[in-house]
Amino acid sequence: MSAHVFDQAVALTPAGEHQWAGQTHAAYANMVGPFGGITTAQVVNALMQHPQRLGDPIALTVNFCAAVADGAFVITATPVRTNRSTQHWTLAMTQGEETVFTGTAVTAVRRDTWSLDEEPMPTCPPPHEVPIPTMKPPMEFVKRYEQRVITGPLPQVWDGSGESSVSQLWVRDNPPRALDFVSLAAISDIFFPRVFVRRSTHVPAGTVTLTTYFHVHAAELSQVGEGYLLGQARAQAFRNGFFDQTAQLWSEAGVMLVSTHQLVYYKQ
Amino acid sequence: MSAHVFDQAVALTPAGEHQWAGQTHAAYANMVGPFGGITTAQVVNALMQHPQRLGDPIALTVNFCAAVADGAFVITATPVRTNRSTQHWTLAMTQGEETVFTGTAVTAVRRDTWSLDEEPMPTCPPPHEVPIPTMKPPMEFVKRYEQRVITGPLPQVWDGSGESSVSQLWVRDNPPRALDFVSLAAISDIFFPRVFVRRSTHVPAGTVTLTTYFHVHAAELSQVGEGYLLGQARAQAFRNGFFDQTAQLWSEAGVMLVSTHQLVYYKQ
Repeated sequence: MSAHVFDQAVALTPAGEHQWAGQTHAAYANMVGPFGGITTAQVVNALMQHPQRLGDPIALTVNFCAAVADGAFVITATPVRTNRSTQHWTLAMTQGEETVFTGTAVTAVRRDTWSLDEEPMPTCPPPHEVPIPTMKPPMEFVKRYEQRVITGPLPQVWDGSGESSVSQLWVRDNPPRALDFVSLAAISDIFFPRVFVRRSTHVPAGTVTLTTYFHVHAAELSQVGEGYLLGQARAQAFRNGFFDQTAQLWSEAGVMLVSTHQLVYYKQ
Repeated sequence: MSAHVFDQAVALTPAGEHQWAGQTHAAYANMVGPFGGITTAQVVNALMQHPQRLGDPIALTVNFCAAVADGAFVITATPVRTNRSTQHWTLAMTQGEETVFTGTAVTAVRRDTWSLDEEPMPTCPPPHEVPIPTMKPPMEFVKRYEQRVITGPLPQVWDGSGESSVSQLWVRDNPPRALDFVSLAAISDIFFPRVFVRRSTHVPAGTVTLTTYFHVHAAELSQVGEGYLLGQARAQAFRNGFFDQTAQLWSEAGVMLVSTHQLVYYKQ
């Protein structure tokens, strides 16, 4: 087993049919409770370990039902329908009697077909030309990611001056770790709430639901290794307490690895 | 009860705690089995009728696990977590012992806050200036929607000449029907597979999973009435058997009602 802190954080113990037990990890703490991406990764890790899994993840929807308390949890990952080349899963995380997380996933055996990226990777300076922010990370989990922000950083001055919700950044695990579906699921939640950058205003906010589509199979993903991912995120509509944000992650080679969408609560 | 064919198609009978019974409807038939949008609408109708429902739908993910057979089905809609202002649901449709559909939803009581549409409605000619296609609809359900296609129609000639996956169209129920969350959930699946328009090539294709974010509460939605919706859809990545498509629907007044994302299987 790798000694990487990410692997420690997503480690699980089998706990019965379709069930695994795990623990939150202090290295991935957010303001309150854990980073949503690490919770998602823990659940994806259960799915990846399931002996009946068919193929690789192609779609994942997770719902953050309640704050995850620091401590133990149980994950349930159940294959509810297995077809010839696709498989449908229901997912849940519980703490005692409390359901704190629900979701669904689809896995599939992919075959080579005509392929095309219609949304090209934006033209950006290469990772080594983009400085690492010197700002002290506000939350512990932020230290677990090397983020080189090209545009749309967390505002330095919260003066209501924002004009666009777009962010672009290079990102990878810190320290580097070879990318897999579990870590990719976590990184898909790396984009902080768009309301911060659009408004340059402090507003309580948190992801309610996150959907990620994976565009590569395991062999393609392994080619990324410890390379950087280019992430781009933006919002479409902020309305009465909730906004959506849509994002993409590309490999350095320009392959879109995931497109991801989330709905985020904001207080005011 | 309205005599509108949509209301007939989504009609349900209570069948125990969290359960409803229904039937597929010939008026919404697709090539094989029913239009995915009507299946989604049937499930949303169960959610809307649930006596414990808190607030309006804000997010919905549905997974098409297997072809829905013509005939009877049972829907299960279970509130698994109820918070102060949000509620999390798991959804399923079964036919006999077969699970054909799974999903999750979030409902919420929305409060007035700072709001902004960052993605503006595209500039398009008004509905009455866009002709209704004269092409005979290939599937029965297509007749249930008045679609005035501005750009990106179903190709007239399948010669591999496509260049962009973008479609824009005005759409409403046919005959007109006042919009509600149930019909809006159906219309969110109106965009035919992007692979057709991008390639101008016949390829077997079908939606695997669909996520819809609702940006309006019931009172705002009721203002749309029988008006047209402007829909815009495009793909981001086609890769080895699956592609994503992302879409928006605006009211004629320019309010984004939903943003929606799906992953679609294609054969080659």
